[in-house]
Amino acid sequence: MSDIEIGRAKRARRAFAFDDIAIVPSRRTRDPHDVSVNWTIDAFTFDIPVIAAPMDSVVSPATAIAMGRLGGLGVLDLEGVWTRYDDPEPVLAEIRGLDEATATSRMQQLYSEPIKPHLIKERLAEIRAAGVPVAGALSPQRTQEHYQTVVDAGVDLFVIRGTTVSAEHVSKSTEPLNLKEFIYELDVPVIVGGAATYTAALHLMRTGAAGVLVGFGGGAASTTRASLGIHAPMATAVADVAGARRDYLDESGGRYVHVIADGGLGTSGDIVKAVSMGADAVMLGSTLARADEAPGGGWHWGAEAHHHELPRGNRVEVGTTGSLEHVLFGPSTQSDGRMNIIGALKRSMATTGYSDLKEFQRVEVVVAPYHKN
Amino acid sequence: MSDIEIGRAKRARRAFAFDDIAIVPSRRTRDPHDVSVNWTIDAFTFDIPVIAAPMDSVVSPATAIAMGRLGGLGVLDLEGVWTRYDDPEPVLAEIRGLDEATATSRMQQLYSEPIKPHLIKERLAEIRAAGVPVAGALSPQRTQEHYQTVVDAGVDLFVIRGTTVSAEHVSKSTEPLNLKEFIYELDVPVIVGGAATYTAALHLMRTGAAGVLVGFGGGAASTTRASLGIHAPMATAVADVAGARRDYLDESGGRYVHVIADGGLGTSGDIVKAVSMGADAVMLGSTLARADEAPGGGWHWGAEAHHHELPRGNRVEVGTTGSLEHVLFGPSTQSDGRMNIIGALKRSMATTGYSDLKEFQRVEVVVAPYHKN
Amino acid sequence: MSDIEIGRAKRARRAFAFDDIAIVPSRRTRDPHDVSVNWTIDAFTFDIPVIAAPMDSVVSPATAIAMGRLGGLGVLDLEGVWTRYDDPEPVLAEIRGLDEATATSRMQQLYSEPIKPHLIKERLAEIRAAGVPVAGALSPQRTQEHYQTVVDAGVDLFVIRGTTVSAEHVSKSTEPLNLKEFIYELDVPVIVGGAATYTAALHLMRTGAAGVLVGFGGGAASTTRASLGIHAPMATAVADVAGARRDYLDESGGRYVHVIADGGLGTSGDIVKAVSMGADAVMLGSTLARADEAPGGGWHWGAEAHHHELPRGNRVEVGTTGSLEHVLFGPSTQSDGRMNIIGALKRSMATTGYSDLKEFQRVEVVVAPYHKN
Amino acid sequence: MSDIEIGRAKRARRAFAFDDIAIVPSRRTRDPHDVSVNWTIDAFTFDIPVIAAPMDSVVSPATAIAMGRLGGLGVLDLEGVWTRYDDPEPVLAEIRGLDEATATSRMQQLYSEPIKPHLIKERLAEIRAAGVPVAGALSPQRTQEHYQTVVDAGVDLFVIRGTTVSAEHVSKSTEPLNLKEFIYELDVPVIVGGAATYTAALHLMRTGAAGVLVGFGGGAASTTRASLGIHAPMATAVADVAGARRDYLDESGGRYVHVIADGGLGTSGDIVKAVSMGADAVMLGSTLARADEAPGGGWHWGAEAHHHELPRGNRVEVGTTGSLEHVLFGPSTQSDGRMNIIGALKRSMATTGYSDLKEFQRVEVVVAPYHKN
Repeated sequence: MSDIEIGRAKRARRAFAFDDIAIVPSRRTRDPHDVSVNWTIDAFTFDIPVIAAPMDSVVSPATAIAMGRLGGLGVLDLEGVWTRYDDPEPVLAEIRGLDEATATSRMQQLYSEPIKPHLIKERLAEIRAAGVPVAGALSPQRTQEHYQTVVDAGVDLFVIRGTTVSAEHVSKSTEPLNLKEFIYELDVPVIVGGAATYTAALHLMRTGAAGVLVGFGGGAASTTRASLGIHAPMATAVADVAGARRDYLDESGGRYVHVIADGGLGTSGDIVKAVSMGADAVMLGSTLARADEAPGGGWHWGAEAHHHELPRGNRVEVGTTGSLEHVLFGPSTQSDGRMNIIGALKRSMATTGYSDLKEFQRVEVVVAPYHKN
Repeated sequence: MSDIEIGRAKRARRAFAFDDIAIVPSRRTRDPHDVSVNWTIDAFTFDIPVIAAPMDSVVSPATAIAMGRLGGLGVLDLEGVWTRYDDPEPVLAEIRGLDEATATSRMQQLYSEPIKPHLIKERLAEIRAAGVPVAGALSPQRTQEHYQTVVDAGVDLFVIRGTTVSAEHVSKSTEPLNLKEFIYELDVPVIVGGAATYTAALHLMRTGAAGVLVGFGGGAASTTRASLGIHAPMATAVADVAGARRDYLDESGGRYVHVIADGGLGTSGDIVKAVSMGADAVMLGSTLARADEAPGGGWHWGAEAHHHELPRGNRVEVGTTGSLEHVLFGPSTQSDGRMNIIGALKRSMATTGYSDLKEFQRVEVVVAPYHKN
Repeated sequence: MSDIEIGRAKRARRAFAFDDIAIVPSRRTRDPHDVSVNWTIDAFTFDIPVIAAPMDSVVSPATAIAMGRLGGLGVLDLEGVWTRYDDPEPVLAEIRGLDEATATSRMQQLYSEPIKPHLIKERLAEIRAAGVPVAGALSPQRTQEHYQTVVDAGVDLFVIRGTTVSAEHVSKSTEPLNLKEFIYELDVPVIVGGAATYTAALHLMRTGAAGVLVGFGGGAASTTRASLGIHAPMATAVADVAGARRDYLDESGGRYVHVIADGGLGTSGDIVKAVSMGADAVMLGSTLARADEAPGGGWHWGAEAHHHELPRGNRVEVGTTGSLEHVLFGPSTQSDGRMNIIGALKRSMATTGYSDLKEFQRVEVVVAPYHKN
Repeated sequence: MSDIEIGRAKRARRAFAFDDIAIVPSRRTRDPHDVSVNWTIDAFTFDIPVIAAPMDSVVSPATAIAMGRLGGLGVLDLEGVWTRYDDPEPVLAEIRGLDEATATSRMQQLYSEPIKPHLIKERLAEIRAAGVPVAGALSPQRTQEHYQTVVDAGVDLFVIRGTTVSAEHVSKSTEPLNLKEFIYELDVPVIVGGAATYTAALHLMRTGAAGVLVGFGGGAASTTRASLGIHAPMATAVADVAGARRDYLDESGGRYVHVIADGGLGTSGDIVKAVSMGADAVMLGSTLARADEAPGGGWHWGAEAHHHELPRGNRVEVGTTGSLEHVLFGPSTQSDGRMNIIGALKRSMATTGYSDLKEFQRVEVVVAPYHKN
């Protein structure tokens, strides 16, 4: 595997980003209207394989409901402004208006407001009342503190999401979350990640997770590579985790764990490539933050952007593209891969002759790095 | 073939763009005046291997005639403004003047005007009256609806051109065009594409096509890669389809199907490289859109730019370079590979010692990615 | 090794920069608070593996003391303004204020002021009086002239640092420094470099050096590659020298020579990667030049920038990031990998499951070139 | 050799530019003052391996004399303004002052002025009178027309230089120059090129040439790649031609043909790399065009820039760096590799432990593509 010598004392393996690869058609084409992109995880079938990321700029209770009604899933960040503030709207407005020099430090203050258990219950109840699937996310650090509140409030899918989540967290000072026991005792399916390698993903699959998030959630807004030196190019990461899914399917005697690409998905072309590498679904941040309804109001940020000790991301202005429905289903009035993303996915599958997502994971790809002009 | 591991569950093959390669001279040089670049397809011999692309910014009846008189071929888009409007000049003028924010949506409206069969006949008759070869293009979606009109009007070469055209299109709702039957019954030679892989091209060749367009027609004005994730770097695509031509020649007992590079040909250097990879001719868009006579008037756009659901291209300002004759034959007063493109092709062939296009397909090339400064 | 043919008469080996590689997590994660980054060389144990580079924009006696108190080491350049001028502050202020056109020639003049032995003694005594480890640096050219002064003044670590220092310097006109004899006779441990290849480093290790500096000290401010054509991408250089350390450990029957990465370390991510390649510690220039206390006052330059015949670097404005303590330990209010670099190192080690630096040298890396957007 | 598959019908070989490689030091260093860079071709020994390119912006009779006095060689372009105009100064001044839009067409006019044989004699006599080696250049197209004038005037070295010069030029309309006969009959040593491949160079060597120019003369001012698709990355080109020199040395029983890199030499680092690939000397354009004395007065252009049919280069503003002496020998007051280029070459050789050019051709290099920031 590690076939490249970096220097006498170190070998490494080549890894590929979505920008390094491209999809190629073959001898058959298909009518886009005959293509299905639905996706089933546990008892839930979704019309589209799109999950809105648990980020304050992307998912509010209202947009979680909108995502559900449009056939997808919205995951509320249970450590964001909606569970820290009774009325988060002024906080979101303030974040939008911060000048660049002081944005990070002010966001660190705003997010030091404690999480209120009663708000967790109220927000999830609001989503449930709309009749759509309910999903909330906690970081692994805070899962033990708040999961009982979440379970009592009732969720259909439980998401544990951090930059890197492992099946074996070691700590001398705190009792780490035992994922395997936790998932075993929980009644609801758990999606967990980010993981970015075969080994990390395989161990997460063995904890009983229903789905694994691939990537570190870091797209345009993340500086994890500059700050930590850590980076897992997404094409390789998804294909590696898809390999773990295949091997675990065999090892477990038939348990299929869903692979969800999370990060680096800036255009519909990237989403297409994620599926081509083996993803069953995608978790989107910035693309959905550009919807008119998004709580970020044209701005986008992740939890890394306000880490109290080591921020590893920025609040970035992404602008607005159109309604959430237009972003997902078009019709599109622009050509940059940020509108009608489901239409683009279907057209790409049709152009290469595939009719469902599982088949499309077999599409032929080439290594063809971008030439910037 | 797929010798690169992207990740555990996916392998791929390296593909090359024109910018990745360069031509190298060998031990012989030749006088440019001794070089011939003529090209014969079916009963037609052309002095130059250049086809003007069926795009409203490139080919009007007048420029189709001009191309013919200059020794090449102009293909009229039979789904463009010339067959939708009695007087397309004001429409072209309006498109030129649109501001960027609303250009795509207004073009979607302008191109929703129905195609008029009588205009198809009139436009083709106008070209025929000038005594040059007549060629018109339809998309595969509209070929069945309009081909009889086209055939009645009379064409010398029939072009079926879409982003990706396959020999086997599958649809549940509409009866797809059976290319093999269609071409068999038609009296005129058919050029069909885009195709970008060995397999896709081989199947198109088996339908009886006289020529195959290689590429997705997408150069500067296309965003297919960002939008669909689909991309076929042109050097590899042309060399693969040339491989299909060779194998089909053997399989068919001697039928030579012409390989026409279509897309990514921004400079005369790219045209040279297309031939070096095995192309018999090139179909040009933006290069000819820069001619003074081009109907785009310094602007360039393709049909993808006004797709009603998923536009995958932009209207771009390309400016004007000089008369069509100067663009093709010089003398040139600029050095960027956009003027005197036939002179450049001849000089490149002379510099490397070749005297005709078929021989020049054997020229030595190197992999030498561009270093941008 | 030299497996790539450049041309018929030349072969070469691929070398990698920090930007070419990235670290990937595995199946285990760890609490950042359990991670230790301490480092021991000879009789000295440091809390952090960071050495401030002997450059006038980075280390003054005051910042050497501050580095020591914060658990690191500051090395004073004994050929800089502090040993040439009684009061260097006006000189530093003038350098900051020079306009770009004349900066190089004025710096050449300012650095032609002779070195004063009594100032060497006073500056080192000032550092010693503060109770922190004392370290000073000379170039190999001036070591023989000044080392006795340095030894008399008393240093804990002696640094010999030049663009390239070899164990075998050949000269017809001057008697070159015999490093092996010099180090043998000296009482204090010697750190020597830069070296950038396995062979060069192995020979330096055989002279008895306690540590080897890897690299040419050239980061943002260096133009050695454009000027001399010499360049050693740092990931390969560190991994090669780490290979020399391993082989020399065996050859010498157990002497462990420390590998100190010096150059190309612009972000905390680069520091992480240096350790992943086998570095025991890092020598930092520009990162520490950004501290509020740095004598450069927001500007940064190395000795190459004022070479009297062939300057190979520039004075560059780097700005200020925060206090030295914040640069090293945070908390950070920015996300570009230039603040809380120790926090970033610990978090990276924790995220990949490692608890000390020596173990972390085994972390898995991938080749993943940056995609600039 | 052609180990990369571009596509089914085409294979290619990887070629490398100077920017793709770098030199690495080894275990020995040396005093720069002990390094010799002298170079002997035929009966002439030069202190420095630098030839000023026959371009109007670089070499006038005065700068040819200056080059000779500084230990190098200046080659006068015998088809430039000095042999077309009695007083070329106003022409040079006009070229400098042309605005960009009309520069190419006006230069085409200015260079259509006929070449005057009596001016060839006068200009060469002026150089000879100064007591320095005399060299003049003709293109292969005009060699037969003017060489007798040149020989009568008297030259020490005769240069035949074109974009691509081959030993076997084929033409139906004109009797091509038979290089082998021509060189055999001539009394003076001939330097000929450009050639860029092993085969082309080997055939040129067999004509009896004393030296071969490697490259197409195209650096910053050339657009040969965009225009003709032809490009030979210089590191590979020089190493290939050095391979031809080695094989021809054996084949001829000891005739050593000099390899002169010509093109792509923008910095002293590039010059260093050219020698490391096997070059015996370098021919410089833009670097010397930056000298205060250069006739271009801060502007630079080659003959390709005013080709009457197909210009393949631009007139570019390069500015001035300092006197010719400072450009060659320093001291330098800038750090971009454009001043003190001989000092840089010597220092690079010293840093890697070499003492003469022939030895330095064996220095170790790595493949290390530039990372632009």
